[in-house]
Amino acid sequence: MPESPIRKLVPFAEAARAKGIKIFPLNIGQPDIETPDVALNAVRNYPHNVIEYSHSAGMPSLREKLVEYYKTVNIEVSPEEIIVGTGASEALLFAFQSIMDPGDEVIIPEPFYANYNGFATNAGIQVKPIFSSIDTGFALPPIADFEKNITFKTKAILVCNPNNPTGYLYSKEELEILRDIVKKHNLFLISDEVYREFTYDGKQHYSAMNLDGIEENVILIDSVSKRYSACGVRIGWMISKNKEVMATALKFAQARLSPPTFGQVAAEAAVDTPEAYFKKVKDEYLVRRNAVVEGINSIDNAFCPNPSGAFYVVARLPIDDSDKFCQWLLEDFSFENQTVMLAPASGFYSTPGKGKNEVRISYVLKVEDLKASVKVLDEALKVYPGRK
Amino acid sequence: MPESPIRKLVPFAEAARAKGIKIFPLNIGQPDIETPDVALNAVRNYPHNVIEYSHSAGMPSLREKLVEYYKTVNIEVSPEEIIVGTGASEALLFAFQSIMDPGDEVIIPEPFYANYNGFATNAGIQVKPIFSSIDTGFALPPIADFEKNITFKTKAILVCNPNNPTGYLYSKEELEILRDIVKKHNLFLISDEVYREFTYDGKQHYSAMNLDGIEENVILIDSVSKRYSACGVRIGWMISKNKEVMATALKFAQARLSPPTFGQVAAEAAVDTPEAYFKKVKDEYLVRRNAVVEGINSIDNAFCPNPSGAFYVVARLPIDDSDKFCQWLLEDFSFENQTVMLAPASGFYSTPGKGKNEVRISYVLKVEDLKASVKVLDEALKVYPGRK
Repeated sequence: MPESPIRKLVPFAEAARAKGIKIFPLNIGQPDIETPDVALNAVRNYPHNVIEYSHSAGMPSLREKLVEYYKTVNIEVSPEEIIVGTGASEALLFAFQSIMDPGDEVIIPEPFYANYNGFATNAGIQVKPIFSSIDTGFALPPIADFEKNITFKTKAILVCNPNNPTGYLYSKEELEILRDIVKKHNLFLISDEVYREFTYDGKQHYSAMNLDGIEENVILIDSVSKRYSACGVRIGWMISKNKEVMATALKFAQARLSPPTFGQVAAEAAVDTPEAYFKKVKDEYLVRRNAVVEGINSIDNAFCPNPSGAFYVVARLPIDDSDKFCQWLLEDFSFENQTVMLAPASGFYSTPGKGKNEVRISYVLKVEDLKASVKVLDEALKVYPGRK
Repeated sequence: MPESPIRKLVPFAEAARAKGIKIFPLNIGQPDIETPDVALNAVRNYPHNVIEYSHSAGMPSLREKLVEYYKTVNIEVSPEEIIVGTGASEALLFAFQSIMDPGDEVIIPEPFYANYNGFATNAGIQVKPIFSSIDTGFALPPIADFEKNITFKTKAILVCNPNNPTGYLYSKEELEILRDIVKKHNLFLISDEVYREFTYDGKQHYSAMNLDGIEENVILIDSVSKRYSACGVRIGWMISKNKEVMATALKFAQARLSPPTFGQVAAEAAVDTPEAYFKKVKDEYLVRRNAVVEGINSIDNAFCPNPSGAFYVVARLPIDDSDKFCQWLLEDFSFENQTVMLAPASGFYSTPGKGKNEVRISYVLKVEDLKASVKVLDEALKVYPGRK
């Protein structure tokens, strides 16, 4: 299990803080947005006196409520097609374990969420990355790139939509291309849609669940963590209409007994979050995204695409090595006693050497702090010894 | 991932309930005891407005509180020696993954907690069972039996003390025998002590953590689930003084981000559960154990050891096949419109054919219900076609 490049920076951040330097944390996907009251209150009003195991697939009342939620986003599912996990993390692990044997392969466009590597290691499977480029804003790579990576060991393609780390929102047309590949080679399509609600510029999210003709092949991964700013409840789930997949996944779910009760209580109540909450949150993220994208593009020789989803961007900076740069920002730099903590993009690429001049920025801070962060970054790049 | 023999019975139980038959559930380890108020109230008074990720190793305040708890049971640990998991389930998986590679072997006295098989499958390791006999009350098997099962692939011995499913409480002398084997062959000793508080007949629990000379080899597995009747919070942990083990385990912990926040809040507060709570709970379990043990031993040709810990017994019944018998109890039998759901002991043995005339009984119901259950069982055995 390799250590993530973000984790490696933690001791440097601690040392900087000990020196009294203020750090803007743009490195993690922990939103500062408040969890909806309905979710918090449900936990605060927990009525039972024994905190019992729940159903291994998740509380029936939660799964029924999720069916309601999916109706509002035009996805038809039934409670039996849902298995609740301890976060999307566990749900994705169940999905991997249910459709692949050790040694099998999953194709993932890179850069991709670094923790996918951990789940793959845990399941004993191999990740085959396909390069997507910052120059196209991280659009879906050409079909030919998928085709040439499909072997007899390939069992699935995994996409994150909207994407972490790039923020890219796949179009319906791109998903239909994936559908055709999946159908032709009889693969599974795992679609991680935990950022479904976070779309901007009037663009709509299109779910893999609505692709015609591959109903038995799609596995949806979802979570309350980002949608309701409730990362700590550790509730996610997998959805599949494939009965065989679900029967296997349930055995893995039973082996660990049940997902956490309080998180399920919060998740169930969260479905009733008023629409106004999302409007406010999305308006806020849009302002933040614009501040970051405009800010970075105003820096000499820096480039940031303008993605339509999630709350991340991957930006290209005029630097030699993002791991070194991100460490240097914490270890050797400050501007007006402030610095920024960024995630080196190298950690999101599986191909060695890729992403060396890219960083991921999570726009999870207030807009003033984001503007201050861009200023710090601009000043840093003026003096960074490894500037290119 | 094989299906557990208990799970297989669920549809038969549902069918029996649909016919209006009352089932006494003696098959699972879900206590009916109330969760302490301090734990429930801590969750009900959760003060924060964002449910954030916690530290991957568990909230520092929880780990500090656990150090306090361990002082009360004469175990010295530091917060850095604790990694909190989503239940002891995940903690044990981390332990397996941290000390073994796929193909390695762990020795476990059987019968053992059936879910150990699932965690072993997940980690890609092999369980080597060593037979312990109902005739000795499931005491530690002879040293020779361990020695002859140790190969170059053997990395650990795992014991559950007090034991699930047998209720057996290992003595200090037995643990010292294990210590000597572990030391001689440089193995790890994984000690699952989640039932530590549940000891009877004036016997004291002796922790593997207090064995001299193998401090670097011991991994303690623990949980709040049974101690505070809080199975649903999904909080357990592993403890080791071995820095290398802990560093590896932390990487696995980081890969799944963090354990559930609310469960940790409940767990931290639960440490302040008043002593009177445990006295009452233990008094209650003692009465229940006595009712079950005496009740079963009064049945013709049945035998039940009188174990000193946990809240389980494994009993021998005059039957041909416990899987068949347990299914028959639900499918074809009732006495005064009641029946019992038991766990076939075959599921707790790894060696095929063992435990065919044994069942596990969890004494997690009120004593009147346990007495009624024994009566039902007695009547059932009078008419069971596979009686021997």
